Amino acid sequence: MGLMLGAAALVSVAALAWSAYATYWVARRDPGTERMREIQGYIREGAWAFMLAEARVMAITLAVVGAVLWALFYWEVAVAFWVGSGLAMAAGFIGMNAATLANARTTHAARTSFKQALNVAFSGGSVMGMAVAGLAVGGLALVIWLFRREFDPGILYIHTKTIFGIPGADVNFIKGALIVSAYSAGASLVALFDRVGGGIYTKAADMAADLVGKVELKIPEDDPRNPATIADNVGDNVGDVGGLGADLLESFVGAVISAIVISLYIYVGRGNPDIQGLLAKFGLGENITQDFWWFALLPILYVTGGIVACLIAIAYIRFSRREQGTQGILMNGTRLGALLTAGFAALFTWLSPLNFVPFYAAILGIVSGIAIGFVSEYYTSSRYKPTRDLAKAYQSGAAVGVTEGMAVGMMSALWPCLIIAVATVVAYQMGGLLAVAYAALGMLSFVGMTVSVDSYGPIGDNAAGIATMAKLDPSVRERTDQLDAIGNTTAAIGKGFAIGSAAFAALGLIAAYLWSAAGRADEVHVPDIPIINPTVGGMVVAGLIVGAMVTYVFSALLIRAVSRTADVMVQEIRRQFRDNPKIMSGEESPDYRRCITITAHGGVRRMVLPSLLALGMPLFVGLLFGRYTLAGFLVGALLSAIMLAIYCGNAGGAMDNAKKYVEEGHFGGKGSEAHAAGVIADTVGDPLKDTVGPSLDILIKLMSVISLLFASLFPVIPFFMR
Amino acid sequence: MGLMLGAAALVSVAALAWSAYATYWVARRDPGTERMREIQGYIREGAWAFMLAEARVMAITLAVVGAVLWALFYWEVAVAFWVGSGLAMAAGFIGMNAATLANARTTHAARTSFKQALNVAFSGGSVMGMAVAGLAVGGLALVIWLFRREFDPGILYIHTKTIFGIPGADVNFIKGALIVSAYSAGASLVALFDRVGGGIYTKAADMAADLVGKVELKIPEDDPRNPATIADNVGDNVGDVGGLGADLLESFVGAVISAIVISLYIYVGRGNPDIQGLLAKFGLGENITQDFWWFALLPILYVTGGIVACLIAIAYIRFSRREQGTQGILMNGTRLGALLTAGFAALFTWLSPLNFVPFYAAILGIVSGIAIGFVSEYYTSSRYKPTRDLAKAYQSGAAVGVTEGMAVGMMSALWPCLIIAVATVVAYQMGGLLAVAYAALGMLSFVGMTVSVDSYGPIGDNAAGIATMAKLDPSVRERTDQLDAIGNTTAAIGKGFAIGSAAFAALGLIAAYLWSAAGRADEVHVPDIPIINPTVGGMVVAGLIVGAMVTYVFSALLIRAVSRTADVMVQEIRRQFRDNPKIMSGEESPDYRRCITITAHGGVRRMVLPSLLALGMPLFVGLLFGRYTLAGFLVGALLSAIMLAIYCGNAGGAMDNAKKYVEEGHFGGKGSEAHAAGVIADTVGDPLKDTVGPSLDILIKLMSVISLLFASLFPVIPFFMR
Repeated sequence: MGLMLGAAALVSVAALAWSAYATYWVARRDPGTERMREIQGYIREGAWAFMLAEARVMAITLAVVGAVLWALFYWEVAVAFWVGSGLAMAAGFIGMNAATLANARTTHAARTSFKQALNVAFSGGSVMGMAVAGLAVGGLALVIWLFRREFDPGILYIHTKTIFGIPGADVNFIKGALIVSAYSAGASLVALFDRVGGGIYTKAADMAADLVGKVELKIPEDDPRNPATIADNVGDNVGDVGGLGADLLESFVGAVISAIVISLYIYVGRGNPDIQGLLAKFGLGENITQDFWWFALLPILYVTGGIVACLIAIAYIRFSRREQGTQGILMNGTRLGALLTAGFAALFTWLSPLNFVPFYAAILGIVSGIAIGFVSEYYTSSRYKPTRDLAKAYQSGAAVGVTEGMAVGMMSALWPCLIIAVATVVAYQMGGLLAVAYAALGMLSFVGMTVSVDSYGPIGDNAAGIATMAKLDPSVRERTDQLDAIGNTTAAIGKGFAIGSAAFAALGLIAAYLWSAAGRADEVHVPDIPIINPTVGGMVVAGLIVGAMVTYVFSALLIRAVSRTADVMVQEIRRQFRDNPKIMSGEESPDYRRCITITAHGGVRRMVLPSLLALGMPLFVGLLFGRYTLAGFLVGALLSAIMLAIYCGNAGGAMDNAKKYVEEGHFGGKGSEAHAAGVIADTVGDPLKDTVGPSLDILIKLMSVISLLFASLFPVIPFFMR
Repeated sequence: MGLMLGAAALVSVAALAWSAYATYWVARRDPGTERMREIQGYIREGAWAFMLAEARVMAITLAVVGAVLWALFYWEVAVAFWVGSGLAMAAGFIGMNAATLANARTTHAARTSFKQALNVAFSGGSVMGMAVAGLAVGGLALVIWLFRREFDPGILYIHTKTIFGIPGADVNFIKGALIVSAYSAGASLVALFDRVGGGIYTKAADMAADLVGKVELKIPEDDPRNPATIADNVGDNVGDVGGLGADLLESFVGAVISAIVISLYIYVGRGNPDIQGLLAKFGLGENITQDFWWFALLPILYVTGGIVACLIAIAYIRFSRREQGTQGILMNGTRLGALLTAGFAALFTWLSPLNFVPFYAAILGIVSGIAIGFVSEYYTSSRYKPTRDLAKAYQSGAAVGVTEGMAVGMMSALWPCLIIAVATVVAYQMGGLLAVAYAALGMLSFVGMTVSVDSYGPIGDNAAGIATMAKLDPSVRERTDQLDAIGNTTAAIGKGFAIGSAAFAALGLIAAYLWSAAGRADEVHVPDIPIINPTVGGMVVAGLIVGAMVTYVFSALLIRAVSRTADVMVQEIRRQFRDNPKIMSGEESPDYRRCITITAHGGVRRMVLPSLLALGMPLFVGLLFGRYTLAGFLVGALLSAIMLAIYCGNAGGAMDNAKKYVEEGHFGGKGSEAHAAGVIADTVGDPLKDTVGPSLDILIKLMSVISLLFASLFPVIPFFMR
């Protein structure tokens, strides 16, 4: 056990060392001209200001939730929660810091050569990737090591605690499971705030900049005369870098801890013949006490192997000398990362006393994740039929364009859902819910690579913006646009991957919840959740309906947050142009700071209600209506969230890329009817794909992990049915 | 039993007599000027031609499905199926026939007085209302009476049949339950074709007429120069009258037969102690064999009472002498209908040996249905905040308008879902799934009234169109617009009601499916469906995911069908204007017939794929993956369909009414930026609210009733898990 955690800690340190080195290397590059430094300064300042404001709001929530955990359970649980949330916050800041250093430096490097620019951008992105992986695994290893007494196989048992000493208010749980769940819940809560706040910020700024800039004044994107330009670029950093990193960190941690929690429950319930059957599926038998650490910590070994694989792949990409075929290098690097991850997993499985079931489940997860990514690409890339047909439909006007875009999004649910359904069935057949958790783990084990590649996209986007704003030579913008274009393809696959991994991570967390909820007093069962039977009545069906509904209400709140914030911003931009005609003529700079402040204010203020909804609903449903109803609620929310997230992500992606396809000169090109329709459709799709879709990924994971954490508090049969 | 069925048959005949009388009365009114007769002739001809073309496609499907039922089960099952489908088709034709007679006559009556016009329009609508109720109940009574041997309480038992004589291919079912299920499935299949075909027709015509007329040529709605005008009016009749009637007929039949099927299974399983407990909840005990007919046929008595109540309410509205406060008369009439329905239900319950549980459940259903209707009205009427805020958002352009409209639709899921969830729990607590079926029944028992009021709307809409096309005095259009406006409010409530009732009817049918699926060999259990346990593994979760996905794919197919058909139509309209400039100057009439043919062709051709999907998926899932997976599939589809239907219906309704609110002179009125945005948003919302939403209502009912019908064929454990 010491050896395993030590290895995990060592590899985490290596990952963080890479982050530090890459940040240092990027910071030493030349940020370019005076004007470029100025713009970069604005972006950096805005991003820091927003994330600090966000952090203040988060700190209050985190303090309260931690205090509640302390009061209800033990101080260790609260500490684990704070460690998880602290590290997730740190990952966001580290990534954002590197990204806002790398943007102008990428632009400057693009003045020399494309490969130089790629190196800077990718190094900047890899800071976030390695920080996410390193902090998540290192923190988890630390928490388990600190509270190792609670994982001791000799004394592992189901605790009974009387809440606030109220007679009869006894709750039962495995303390170690509670500690790792709290760690994950802390990371989740931060991820939700980051993703929702950042998502509102980035799209409100983008929408307002486009509405006044492109539509009303017909000035190009990233024009320095537009007061919202800088805010738009800040948004890329806080939303796409900070938000995405937090999102994948959460999936990553959730996948690891759900496998650990299920393993702990299986171990404690090893006396039960059903559970012995389950252990046999993993090749474990009477020696389970000896093999305990392998069984419980194999998930950590898998992701540790994943980090090493990603470090090698990143080094390959970073130090590759090829000038041409950049996309090829990125794809090869990702493939290398995935293969090495699988190789390490095979090695660890072979070393362990377990059979290869966890490994097969993990491979199933990796393959499913990649397949879902490719389906997303098919539906959203202009290289394929759906997006080209959509571009053609733009010729019939905005209404038909939006309608057809929605149809593309709905249609795109077909394959991802079939893949998830088949993977769930196959994994369960292999090894019950634990194998489902391993499938999730497999999908996420090379997260370091995914985050690095995804974070590189917004850096390229920012670099392109800075090139235009600093009025550099058009050849620079061409090179940065090329970076941006490559980023878009990898981002499309990455987004599909994020949805798929969120679905699996949530399934894993729900599975862990079911195991926790099935354990009462000193006995543990294999979970058996009814949809309908005389004991639960219609409660679970009601839970399903309410769960499905909550995701819609959450989405509505987010869309509104974006459009209301954008509206305030639009008023401000119009006011600036009206009050100071010198802005339009280019003689004076607009007041960028005011726009940044307005968006930041909107983002922080409007992230609170949806976040509290996500935090509060599982507690409300669980406490009032019991464990089974909450299981229904989570499944209903998962179903609804998967569908909406796929629909929003792919509809928005297709609308965006179909517009770009028109801009490339098809169906009349820029300035045509089709282009005007495309701009409207893209604006409709933007909050769907960048705010709603990604936030739904987190919503469902957060609600699941909160349910897992507080599972023991929820009654089996609700009070009014006794 | 003879007395009960006799009473039902008698009341049905009375309802049909009203339909006949009202048709005769309407036909005797004066259809107005030469021009009006001509327009009406076109509309009538187009509507007949389309519904006949639809009927031909349906006939093939119905013949095949009936033959399959005959081959698999018994000839009685096939006959019941054909009776159900034949009557549903007849109801559509009767309603459409009356509506296409009433439109021009309403316009003509509006030249005299508003009250006259209302009388004609409402009489025309009541034909459909009473035809739906009369045919549905009369047909059911006929089928039960014809095959009364299969309902004989002395010999009622679980049949075992060996499919095609294949050894081991034994299936078990109650023959009577199979017969009424087949009756309902026949009606459902026709309803799906009517709704999908009509929905595609009406919106493709509407969209094309608006895209070329309002947007490109800036000519007003219903302008006779627009070649698509008549097709648009035909669409109102085949979509809104024929489609809606078929939809509610299906809900109505489904609700009645699900209560009957569950009662039959409970009766057969009366030896089981759990089921004795359930019977006790309904006040029934050892005398169940004597009380059998009361227990099994109470649902029919409830709806028979409902028809009498509706006849009284319709007579009240029709013969009311008040000239003013028309909306008041309609509302009072609906209230009267609901109250009398409740009164009759109370009377029959009191006469029966059962306690008042079925009555309370039915009242719960009525109250829930009305509440959901009011929520829909709140979110879609311009008298309330959401739609007014949306109209305000139109000022920021089309993109913000569509986005905010989607947010309104998503938000509007909140209350309906809570209402459905609470009603499900309360009903189940009262009397298990049978009480859930009774709640559905209550909601639908005054369907005659709902259909009458809803069908009156499109007649008013048509009348307004004819007034413009025939260039009558503006005062006539004012009166018909008033009719139309009242129709819109009642239609909003009606649409919410249709969604709510579809959700409940589907729940009832799923409940009946669960009871059928739980019965094996000669034993019947109280249904107990797991979400996850070692027996079903991840199958049910996979079923939930796939079910949720199918509704999205179905919706995508429908949206595409509309926009592709509209696209062909747009080309045709443009061609006519281009080839013949005399159309625009008004010297020559456009070629209306060609547009009608194109839309009809598109509607019929494109309704096939979604309909086969709806028919085939439950069979595919059930046969391959077994009963439990199919239960998951149905629940997943229900969840997804409820959400999408509410979202589509209310988003579309709010976008439409917000546009009308702008047209009334707010935020700049007609011709303003806000109005242009509103027109686009309305066009996006149209296929959502009039094609997708309503078709989803049917999709879920059809899939549930098909599952119920074929339940016995599906394995308990799928072949690959044995």
